Amino acid sequence: MLDFDMIIRGGTVVTAGDTMRCDVGIRDGRIAALGTDLGRAAETVDAHGMLVMPGGIDSHVHLAQPSAPGIVSADDFETGTRSAAFGGTTTVMPFCMQERDQSLREALKIYHARAEDACYVDTSFHLIIADPTASVLGQELPALVEEGYTSLKIYMTYAGLALKDGEILEVLSAARRTGSLVMVHAENDDVIRFLTDQLERDGKTAPYYHALSRPVPAEREATHRAITLAEVVDVPIVIVHVSNAEARDEIARANARGLNIVGETCPQYLMLTASDLEGLDMEGAKYVCSPPPRDRSSQEACWEGLARGTFALYSSDHCAFRYNDPAGKLNAKGRSSFRWVPNGVPGIAARLPILFSEGVIKGRISLQQFVALTATNHARTYGLYPRKGSIAIGSDADIAIWDPERQVTITHDLLHDGADYTPYEGLQVTGWPVSTMVRGRFVVRDGDLVGAKGFGEHVARTKG
Amino acid sequence: MLDFDMIIRGGTVVTAGDTMRCDVGIRDGRIAALGTDLGRAAETVDAHGMLVMPGGIDSHVHLAQPSAPGIVSADDFETGTRSAAFGGTTTVMPFCMQERDQSLREALKIYHARAEDACYVDTSFHLIIADPTASVLGQELPALVEEGYTSLKIYMTYAGLALKDGEILEVLSAARRTGSLVMVHAENDDVIRFLTDQLERDGKTAPYYHALSRPVPAEREATHRAITLAEVVDVPIVIVHVSNAEARDEIARANARGLNIVGETCPQYLMLTASDLEGLDMEGAKYVCSPPPRDRSSQEACWEGLARGTFALYSSDHCAFRYNDPAGKLNAKGRSSFRWVPNGVPGIAARLPILFSEGVIKGRISLQQFVALTATNHARTYGLYPRKGSIAIGSDADIAIWDPERQVTITHDLLHDGADYTPYEGLQVTGWPVSTMVRGRFVVRDGDLVGAKGFGEHVARTKG
Amino acid sequence: MLDFDMIIRGGTVVTAGDTMRCDVGIRDGRIAALGTDLGRAAETVDAHGMLVMPGGIDSHVHLAQPSAPGIVSADDFETGTRSAAFGGTTTVMPFCMQERDQSLREALKIYHARAEDACYVDTSFHLIIADPTASVLGQELPALVEEGYTSLKIYMTYAGLALKDGEILEVLSAARRTGSLVMVHAENDDVIRFLTDQLERDGKTAPYYHALSRPVPAEREATHRAITLAEVVDVPIVIVHVSNAEARDEIARANARGLNIVGETCPQYLMLTASDLEGLDMEGAKYVCSPPPRDRSSQEACWEGLARGTFALYSSDHCAFRYNDPAGKLNAKGRSSFRWVPNGVPGIAARLPILFSEGVIKGRISLQQFVALTATNHARTYGLYPRKGSIAIGSDADIAIWDPERQVTITHDLLHDGADYTPYEGLQVTGWPVSTMVRGRFVVRDGDLVGAKGFGEHVARTKG
Amino acid sequence: MLDFDMIIRGGTVVTAGDTMRCDVGIRDGRIAALGTDLGRAAETVDAHGMLVMPGGIDSHVHLAQPSAPGIVSADDFETGTRSAAFGGTTTVMPFCMQERDQSLREALKIYHARAEDACYVDTSFHLIIADPTASVLGQELPALVEEGYTSLKIYMTYAGLALKDGEILEVLSAARRTGSLVMVHAENDDVIRFLTDQLERDGKTAPYYHALSRPVPAEREATHRAITLAEVVDVPIVIVHVSNAEARDEIARANARGLNIVGETCPQYLMLTASDLEGLDMEGAKYVCSPPPRDRSSQEACWEGLARGTFALYSSDHCAFRYNDPAGKLNAKGRSSFRWVPNGVPGIAARLPILFSEGVIKGRISLQQFVALTATNHARTYGLYPRKGSIAIGSDADIAIWDPERQVTITHDLLHDGADYTPYEGLQVTGWPVSTMVRGRFVVRDGDLVGAKGFGEHVARTKG
Repeated sequence: MLDFDMIIRGGTVVTAGDTMRCDVGIRDGRIAALGTDLGRAAETVDAHGMLVMPGGIDSHVHLAQPSAPGIVSADDFETGTRSAAFGGTTTVMPFCMQERDQSLREALKIYHARAEDACYVDTSFHLIIADPTASVLGQELPALVEEGYTSLKIYMTYAGLALKDGEILEVLSAARRTGSLVMVHAENDDVIRFLTDQLERDGKTAPYYHALSRPVPAEREATHRAITLAEVVDVPIVIVHVSNAEARDEIARANARGLNIVGETCPQYLMLTASDLEGLDMEGAKYVCSPPPRDRSSQEACWEGLARGTFALYSSDHCAFRYNDPAGKLNAKGRSSFRWVPNGVPGIAARLPILFSEGVIKGRISLQQFVALTATNHARTYGLYPRKGSIAIGSDADIAIWDPERQVTITHDLLHDGADYTPYEGLQVTGWPVSTMVRGRFVVRDGDLVGAKGFGEHVARTKG
Repeated sequence: MLDFDMIIRGGTVVTAGDTMRCDVGIRDGRIAALGTDLGRAAETVDAHGMLVMPGGIDSHVHLAQPSAPGIVSADDFETGTRSAAFGGTTTVMPFCMQERDQSLREALKIYHARAEDACYVDTSFHLIIADPTASVLGQELPALVEEGYTSLKIYMTYAGLALKDGEILEVLSAARRTGSLVMVHAENDDVIRFLTDQLERDGKTAPYYHALSRPVPAEREATHRAITLAEVVDVPIVIVHVSNAEARDEIARANARGLNIVGETCPQYLMLTASDLEGLDMEGAKYVCSPPPRDRSSQEACWEGLARGTFALYSSDHCAFRYNDPAGKLNAKGRSSFRWVPNGVPGIAARLPILFSEGVIKGRISLQQFVALTATNHARTYGLYPRKGSIAIGSDADIAIWDPERQVTITHDLLHDGADYTPYEGLQVTGWPVSTMVRGRFVVRDGDLVGAKGFGEHVARTKG
Repeated sequence: MLDFDMIIRGGTVVTAGDTMRCDVGIRDGRIAALGTDLGRAAETVDAHGMLVMPGGIDSHVHLAQPSAPGIVSADDFETGTRSAAFGGTTTVMPFCMQERDQSLREALKIYHARAEDACYVDTSFHLIIADPTASVLGQELPALVEEGYTSLKIYMTYAGLALKDGEILEVLSAARRTGSLVMVHAENDDVIRFLTDQLERDGKTAPYYHALSRPVPAEREATHRAITLAEVVDVPIVIVHVSNAEARDEIARANARGLNIVGETCPQYLMLTASDLEGLDMEGAKYVCSPPPRDRSSQEACWEGLARGTFALYSSDHCAFRYNDPAGKLNAKGRSSFRWVPNGVPGIAARLPILFSEGVIKGRISLQQFVALTATNHARTYGLYPRKGSIAIGSDADIAIWDPERQVTITHDLLHDGADYTPYEGLQVTGWPVSTMVRGRFVVRDGDLVGAKGFGEHVARTKG
Repeated sequence: MLDFDMIIRGGTVVTAGDTMRCDVGIRDGRIAALGTDLGRAAETVDAHGMLVMPGGIDSHVHLAQPSAPGIVSADDFETGTRSAAFGGTTTVMPFCMQERDQSLREALKIYHARAEDACYVDTSFHLIIADPTASVLGQELPALVEEGYTSLKIYMTYAGLALKDGEILEVLSAARRTGSLVMVHAENDDVIRFLTDQLERDGKTAPYYHALSRPVPAEREATHRAITLAEVVDVPIVIVHVSNAEARDEIARANARGLNIVGETCPQYLMLTASDLEGLDMEGAKYVCSPPPRDRSSQEACWEGLARGTFALYSSDHCAFRYNDPAGKLNAKGRSSFRWVPNGVPGIAARLPILFSEGVIKGRISLQQFVALTATNHARTYGLYPRKGSIAIGSDADIAIWDPERQVTITHDLLHDGADYTPYEGLQVTGWPVSTMVRGRFVVRDGDLVGAKGFGEHVARTKG
């Protein structure tokens, strides 16, 4: 009789708490044992010299999500989850976006249909609340939270999505009643419209001016306001994709006075700046996302936020549009003004190698922080723990095997997403996830896609 | 030939810069000389043992201003300016409130008519912008600023008055273009409505619950937001009636990063607390104003804001309603919920004695700070300097003669306003303005009203 | 053939990263496997319903250390390590105190002799540097660091121990050169002497006045100074036994500007206050320690420091003297003035139950934080990791088995130390370490001492 | 009969509170009247187009003060006060430096002898306490404070001057008892010696390295410590010559928690930087002073400190040594190491024109702030008010008449001091004090020295 289905031998297992040289025994898709001399298994994987880490959880991903009429998302559930697997990520949390006048059930039906039989890794939907009616908040939501959709996202900007303060208060109240958690995109919509109008009047329409239309104060203000609304209702919230020191400090100040505000940042805020678009004209569209990357000192501020714990989450905010495509970044209206350039950059695959190389290898964070920021904290924040997010007995065997010394120059073809570029083209990194396994099955093995489309499951989550 | 129309002899003259024993020579309504042995005058006033200080400027006063249908302001221009004079104040800055769909000119016509032949002291109107249309901001305002109406006020709360962020940005832009200055009432309207609804649902409708419906975070948030909008447009603003440490610190933080944000506080935030209403039932309505007074530590925070300069202005926000009056605090709807209790407390006369006694006599501020906070800073902020706000050669002879040792117990009959109570009834103070003079003419002399109704003039102001 | 020497079955294993239901397999004194169905073992321990946690590491303990002539430490290595075991602690880091004119080698010889054959749990010495001569820092220290004595402690107060700033700079430089880590007792000695003299002149000599002689500013100042000296030399330091918000904030501010300052607090700063001594007269001596416990808001500040990570370490600063003893708290000179009351309180056994009950059970910290604060962070900070501080494959099987629901009223007899009282007498706690194991051998089992005196070993440590 | 000895006609009088167009009538050396049409005078001075401002008070000046054996101060009381007058300063506060084992009386006798018949403007001595014995603090000091020597200075660095914390506490206690005020030179002496030794060992001995031996943390630390000692004793202190944001913020933080800490900065911290010495080799000695000037952002921080009121005082810290002189900057030992380059730069004459041009003309501060920072605040802080520091009735007629539009290129010959260079050579300024008057008598008139040596008097001061 075999003890395990698989044993990963000889690697160095890393969790949010520990680094230890040991084997990993897997049975029925779960971690069954950690140890030395574990016994026999149907399959043995040699991981000598490798780091055996929890597969990444990317809790901020846009897949197959409409942006504007005529604009098409570069990634659907197939390409998006494939790219995730190549980047060492084993669980993806995409959004199910409610439209105005649409019930959450209808929206979920549509998004589940899109994901059906398409995913290489596991997924779990956040619900975007665009129309917080009494019936949505009072009837649909409580039921859906019980079914495991335990997180919501709301916007303070974007026409059709932006909620007013009064609506936000209602959503937060509903979250409090149901034990669900609200993610907030915090930028002041009126400031953005005011500045965009002004820039357009001045003929400043190139992608470069996008960043000027969404300055740091617009983000800091909305962050402060979102925190205040959460304070009034007395619920925790997540402030997503924080890009700079001032917004970060609003989070830190709030926590210092006893609130529970979770911060998130993304690779674009560690690696890009607004001045990257200088002189690029329309090609600058490749880097247009919101909030926009800022400057070097903002990058440092985001690194410090990760190192000191103000940011518990590091996600991709993957939201890919093809660049050279009339349904993408270069759509006709986008050529007339940055206002119409679809917002977002791809990052689902590059996320982990960037943090590993720039963070762990350069000494800014420890291996334990890497695991916490990329997996464990996401699982704990959003109700996936202990099923996901660690290499712990009983957890799903969602594992990425990393070669910590491999030197890689990032090129778009390594990332296997549906876009036609990466903003990180040419970046040299040290360390790479060579194999990725979900529930004990390899999806990517030694750089080859070996998983089955449709193997990825949707995961119900526990509430807070 | 006489040298002066009047000489005030033997007093101690106090300005924002100096304290000096000297006589004051007045000619043609202006300060013509300071000195000893000034020569002959038509009239001599003996001020031995007295402080001779600039008459107060109260830059935040509501007179004859409608609040809601059926509600009547307790003070018109006659009673309001009379009370000001009894309190040592020589210039009052009331509001001219635009209604929706009304031009500023129309509003001014109405308010000037109300003030005509009614005022005992000088006045100068701020313009409340309730309907910031393109024509109001683009055509009327520039002309009115040139005519000397150089300050605007906007609201972030109150139905019918509250502007949206986008409207505020337009007003601030207009202020920047015209060189006028915007005052902001900063409370988050949606938070207040959310909490008011909640309190009413819970049957918590007594005046005591008013303060719970407008908590500190609602004020701090709107303060931060107003500052951000001013930062985006790059104009100074005044945050009026700050009630607590958190909002105060937003102002201090903004100035520390290089903005120009002027802070104001009022006597009610130094002397009252929310718990004063405990157990009072409907009589609590006497103390209902917005923002509400907070607690003891907030009072200390406001004192520190005055002492350290975060607050350059100390005003009354006088907004009086009779208590025992169906057109006042005890109107029928107000009995059903604090939501309908008209907001505001009287304070135009008590303002200076409170600051003198609690501030100067108790050692929290100096005499120079007293003069700056009650007169000079108002004149400089709002374009009245050097005509008003100091005892300086060439300035209007607007003077209050104080007996610094007089012990007074404040009672409503000492204040001569149109209300039927004072929130400071029974307060013991040291120091009292015994005589008040506007442009060289006594309005109150040794406690008697001697001025002529209608002597007060409207003063045009310079822009920033 | 047996797979393991011992298996702990059915418990919930807790580490700094994870909580997982699994068995623990132990072989040769080390953790050999975690998992379910681990196979056979010579001995099986039933841990159903129990938490299986890393044994505590107490990195701040005074044992058999002279204080003043005629004063005797209540605990030697036998009683101290016995008490540690009863409190769930498996590694103790006591001090080896250099005397003036003594070499470190001599001091170590003496302290090792005291510890020899006496210890129930493992130990590892910090070196107190009282005489930082060129030969001590330049010759002895480098050799000792290589031998595994990788941490030093210095004092900024206490006659005979306090170093001058210039000496501290030399010690820090030596630490930087050798890769060792310096712990700092931060209180301003001159302030303490000045105030002590003043209090004695005023006849205020009861133990109650001890706290007044060492006010918060004295601690904040020395903390700021120690940090500055570390900043100048560019080395990390540990600020031990932080008692209040102001000193805590100095650490937080330093880290925010990029330094690496580790903070520590202790149970006395979470549970006691200076006013506990009011009205106690000489019995107040039981609570005399330095820095003194402060007030309720300081307790909250220390909790927040633990919860937010400003304090990575939670130690006992166990320094016990018998109360009713002429060689202890009630020595003759101590009766004449608090100046002569030996400083210190016992806490080696109560440390963990207090944090578990007041921290974990009351929701202030998570189980992961509990393990990190009591074990893992100590191991990482002081070079014991991965040998000590976690339940990880390959680590020493240093384990405490906790009954998380046991209700205990703390009384001195439960603690098994050498003192005659505990400052926590009567405190009700939930959760108790029922068994403690060092390197796979029970020291305490189900509340009984079963370990062998002398089983505890001295552990060499790695450098930073 | 003439009304006045002199009338200054047609100028614009500026005080800390006001700006007013008026004449100034002077009688018996004092301001007797301000006004228009003042009557007749023995002498009339035409000031049309001029600013008539209070003469500067320079409360931080070293004259005829020994530095080290063989080193000679470039300025004695004659040249120093002459230079002051040319720079618009009418009162100078030099130091009387006690030597070890010297009584304060002896020291005063020596310094008064040096000043006798030498001064062009008024003076008043601060007492440097270098030997705070019980008799100095307990007997001499109380008597001297009564005689009007109401301020002390102490050092935390410099061999022979630096006091230990315990000594500082005694000095502060004596100040509290006597109502005198302590000025503190705050730099950590041990840090400076440690870094100086290190730099010398590395052969880094040029003047450029002086700044590296006294880094910002050394100043911040001592500032924090001095504040703490003042907090313990509960007395106000003055932190002199603050050079950077971190030390400035220690002062601001202290005041925010309720202490009374006065800050001072100097022209060298607004205009010079440490990198000015790059590539200068020995000529860098011209710029050597302590604390050293820092960098551009520190200059901005000092400007903000002036503008926001953290610094109430702007002084010169004039301490001149001739550059090309074996008894000055280029002494033989100084050539071997920056350690022996005498510390200090001249600035008594350049002080006011620099602040006027860079501060008022460039819009960083107002005219009122200029007067307060250069005169009124010094008078109030050190007990000279109302005799000195303002243009107020009854005050000494100490007046500087400024041409606010005159363009001047600063060269050393304009300054009339005893040095052979100015660090500000070539600086273009707008605004210049063309005439300076002390007690109604011109000392400098239209750029010519017209005053009499010996006219300057020593002024006794009031205590706090």
